[in-house]
Amino acid sequence: MYTLGIDYGTNSVRALVVRCTDGAELGTCVVPYPSGKEGVLLDPRDHHLARQHPGDYLFGLEKSVRGALTQARKTRGFDAAKVIGLGVDTTGSSPIPVDAKNVPIALNPKWRKNLNAQCWLWKDHTGWREAAQITALAAQHRPQFIAKCGNTYSSEWFWSKLWHCRSVAPKVFAAAYSWVELADWIPSVLAGVTDPRQVKRGICCAGHKALYSADWGGLPDKEFLEKLDPALADLRDRLYDQAHDATASAGTLTPGWAAKLGLPAGIPITIGEMDVHYGAIGCGVAEGTLVKVIGTSTCDCGVVSLGKTVPDIPGICGIVPGAILPGFYGIEAGQSAVGDIFKWWVEVVCEGDAARHARLTKEVEKQKPGQSGLLALDWQNGNRTILVDPLLTGLILGCTLHTTQAEIYRALIEATAFGARAIIERIKEYGVPIDRIVCAGGIAEKNPLLMQIYADVTGCTMLVSGSSQACALGSAVSAAVLAGAHPDFPTAQRKMTSLKKIAYKPKAPAQKTYNQLYALYRQVHDSFGGLNKSADLSRVMKDLLALKN
Amino acid sequence: MYTLGIDYGTNSVRALVVRCTDGAELGTCVVPYPSGKEGVLLDPRDHHLARQHPGDYLFGLEKSVRGALTQARKTRGFDAAKVIGLGVDTTGSSPIPVDAKNVPIALNPKWRKNLNAQCWLWKDHTGWREAAQITALAAQHRPQFIAKCGNTYSSEWFWSKLWHCRSVAPKVFAAAYSWVELADWIPSVLAGVTDPRQVKRGICCAGHKALYSADWGGLPDKEFLEKLDPALADLRDRLYDQAHDATASAGTLTPGWAAKLGLPAGIPITIGEMDVHYGAIGCGVAEGTLVKVIGTSTCDCGVVSLGKTVPDIPGICGIVPGAILPGFYGIEAGQSAVGDIFKWWVEVVCEGDAARHARLTKEVEKQKPGQSGLLALDWQNGNRTILVDPLLTGLILGCTLHTTQAEIYRALIEATAFGARAIIERIKEYGVPIDRIVCAGGIAEKNPLLMQIYADVTGCTMLVSGSSQACALGSAVSAAVLAGAHPDFPTAQRKMTSLKKIAYKPKAPAQKTYNQLYALYRQVHDSFGGLNKSADLSRVMKDLLALKN
Repeated sequence: MYTLGIDYGTNSVRALVVRCTDGAELGTCVVPYPSGKEGVLLDPRDHHLARQHPGDYLFGLEKSVRGALTQARKTRGFDAAKVIGLGVDTTGSSPIPVDAKNVPIALNPKWRKNLNAQCWLWKDHTGWREAAQITALAAQHRPQFIAKCGNTYSSEWFWSKLWHCRSVAPKVFAAAYSWVELADWIPSVLAGVTDPRQVKRGICCAGHKALYSADWGGLPDKEFLEKLDPALADLRDRLYDQAHDATASAGTLTPGWAAKLGLPAGIPITIGEMDVHYGAIGCGVAEGTLVKVIGTSTCDCGVVSLGKTVPDIPGICGIVPGAILPGFYGIEAGQSAVGDIFKWWVEVVCEGDAARHARLTKEVEKQKPGQSGLLALDWQNGNRTILVDPLLTGLILGCTLHTTQAEIYRALIEATAFGARAIIERIKEYGVPIDRIVCAGGIAEKNPLLMQIYADVTGCTMLVSGSSQACALGSAVSAAVLAGAHPDFPTAQRKMTSLKKIAYKPKAPAQKTYNQLYALYRQVHDSFGGLNKSADLSRVMKDLLALKN
Repeated sequence: MYTLGIDYGTNSVRALVVRCTDGAELGTCVVPYPSGKEGVLLDPRDHHLARQHPGDYLFGLEKSVRGALTQARKTRGFDAAKVIGLGVDTTGSSPIPVDAKNVPIALNPKWRKNLNAQCWLWKDHTGWREAAQITALAAQHRPQFIAKCGNTYSSEWFWSKLWHCRSVAPKVFAAAYSWVELADWIPSVLAGVTDPRQVKRGICCAGHKALYSADWGGLPDKEFLEKLDPALADLRDRLYDQAHDATASAGTLTPGWAAKLGLPAGIPITIGEMDVHYGAIGCGVAEGTLVKVIGTSTCDCGVVSLGKTVPDIPGICGIVPGAILPGFYGIEAGQSAVGDIFKWWVEVVCEGDAARHARLTKEVEKQKPGQSGLLALDWQNGNRTILVDPLLTGLILGCTLHTTQAEIYRALIEATAFGARAIIERIKEYGVPIDRIVCAGGIAEKNPLLMQIYADVTGCTMLVSGSSQACALGSAVSAAVLAGAHPDFPTAQRKMTSLKKIAYKPKAPAQKTYNQLYALYRQVHDSFGGLNKSADLSRVMKDLLALKN
């Protein structure tokens, strides 16, 4: 028996065929999105904007699934007829304006070219003003709404995006009958749902991004939404009343899509979750384990049994029951840019290519902690956790006339490691244990140098997911549980997920230097980040030079 | 009648033949120093170190003078026999350890390869610890010593360098009978002085760099030097008792050197001054005029009549009677790196060449003030004025994932302009009028974009020296006065110096934006520079983004 995981990333979609008994990955296929810059629609006048054409998702769906099945057929005994379920994960919050038939309005020629009619990609920050207003209004009238997401509602999230659309593009907003998260929309398409109100919504996006909670009866009440904008209150009736964890099904595969994809009709489709949430399952997440999916950005996921009490943790992106694993609170944190920062440095600033990345990595390997005298802040795309502020920017300090490209490259890697440490410390500080860190994503697999730096900076051993496609694997695991191949998630995870043999352990001398550098990072971080409004930074440059010498 | 100006820069020496009647420049020749990296000896393990081989100075002397004379001969009526005087300017403080015969010990094979036995180039900062100790001891025991140099003795200056040599290379220190500033040593060589005690010292280096003042009877007293190091007190007897302004002569040209250079024997040689001080004369410095020589670093010079009272100005490099023009206080300030910063960015970090500089300049021209959201500090080589702190480093903030190489290039230009504004404001704040700014140096001539940014940032019209060789021209002017071709400096300057037709005037819209950016620069500057030890930087990144949008 097999299941299929479909993983919609920032630049491409991947399908993965997995054997339920042992998690063997028999076939995979990646299809890049054809539109925009590597699949992302940008606006040169506003670096906060990032959209995606919904047509690209459909384009990639058939191609990637068929490609994965073709590859799987090379394994003896595989038969597409034995695929018993489908799991879907996507980026999020990536809401799509749809018409009354659940069709994205961007597929209508009238709106085809309108950036505001597209999918509002997770990393779109255009709603930063709205986010601040939602935060302020919630703090005043509904503090409970934001208590679990660090008392700050993010510009990356559902309501900020919808409200911003309503403000800057009222015609687009009016043309949308409803809005559906990409993670909910893909399963609904496969299940043939043609009414947005009938789309089964996952609690993962709902709880983490749309202020949904059973505690207050679902989405924010109309009275509150009215305070933001009457149009949002009006929209509430055309959204949803209930959201579900991964024990629920989003529906079954229609005969039409079954024929297109070459799969059996009627197999169950999971509730969609965000990529990293299913990715956490694919990495074997359990209580005490933090999963870090390190890619263009980084997402951190942990779980705590519903039987326990989790305090509100300032700056964390959300604590949502059932968001990752059924029966557990899902805790999410993240860094707005990680791989994107290295890409920016090498490709945008230094105008290099893949070969340059390779050369710089070699040069960085020769450098020792503290040796460059540099310190950087990893805020080129704002800061998600622990400051929840998109209006922060990157900083590099300690430059001399001898500072090199490779030294700055290392300082940027270290900056992301310091950002990671700030998150781990914040979560632990509030009593959530972290005794095991499992990393996944391209960077975790391909960059041993970065992984060692992360171990040295955080003082934690870094383990690596056995699968290179942890998100798609997690979706397949969820599908296997839904289809009954395993009795529950822990069993399915035990059978279907693994770790690589390598473990990056912290080295004492590097750790010592990094403790000093982290203290300086926090001084600068806290000052520019607004945690310390009477900072004495007069020693920072001198201390960096002292560490260097 | 003609005079010759010889200008020893950081990377090369230039000779210039000038007609005394009208300042016409008949011949010039530049000879790069052959040793080290572009003439500078470096230590990859210590970015503070910068030395120069004294043999390079002699190598360039004959070659440059003969080259300039050859070119001058193309002008009808020129005859080397009509050269009536020689002026010399050099970098400083650049002290050279010499033996009892006034020969640099670095010319002795025993010391040839020893970095500590070379000339300690102006930009060498290895004596930063000693500088701090001198500052502390002077503050305690001889506050008058440092009252005129902003209460801070710099690591770039004479005693910091000598004491550091004594500390790290006691054998080199012991091998040196005396130490002579490059500006004094070249004239002494041409005049055949073979006893360091007989070398005529200029008050320019003595007063600005070696704590010399008639007020306390010359160099610092033995009791004070004893507190630093008995070896320095001992050395004092082998230095000098008196230093002179440009009305004095350093001697006359020996027959030997006359033959080598192709000049008349016996012509007078000026007291050596630092390049920018004679450069100020070559730019027509007078009361109310600030001369900025903008090159790898920037030096600012102004003069105030000896009849007036000049208060102590914190952070200024010195206020010395007669240091520039006889009869006037010379006021010096400066920025430790300007052109060096652009060179670092393009050539070291971005690995570009001259063509890259040209391309980036074109791109920078298209950008508007504030448009990039970036802000930088110009401290890649420390800060001379107004913080007098070599242990400061460069900073770039405001980076997003879209920030480009050219945007950072512009931010670095702007950072140096903000540094220039800080100096101008400091000088004016203490009652020294600046109603005219004349710029010289390669950057002032070749970079109209930078000059316009400087005008917009400072709110002052930027004029440009008529001569491309203002320092060498100033030396020639001084030689013309010494040789009696003109009765005094104002007359000689009126006849022999000029301005280019172009004047960069501040433009109101840019000025407005730059006033806002400068306020942010000062917030960051004052915080990292230690002027504000309880800074609130929480708005800096947001304000930059607001200016950008």
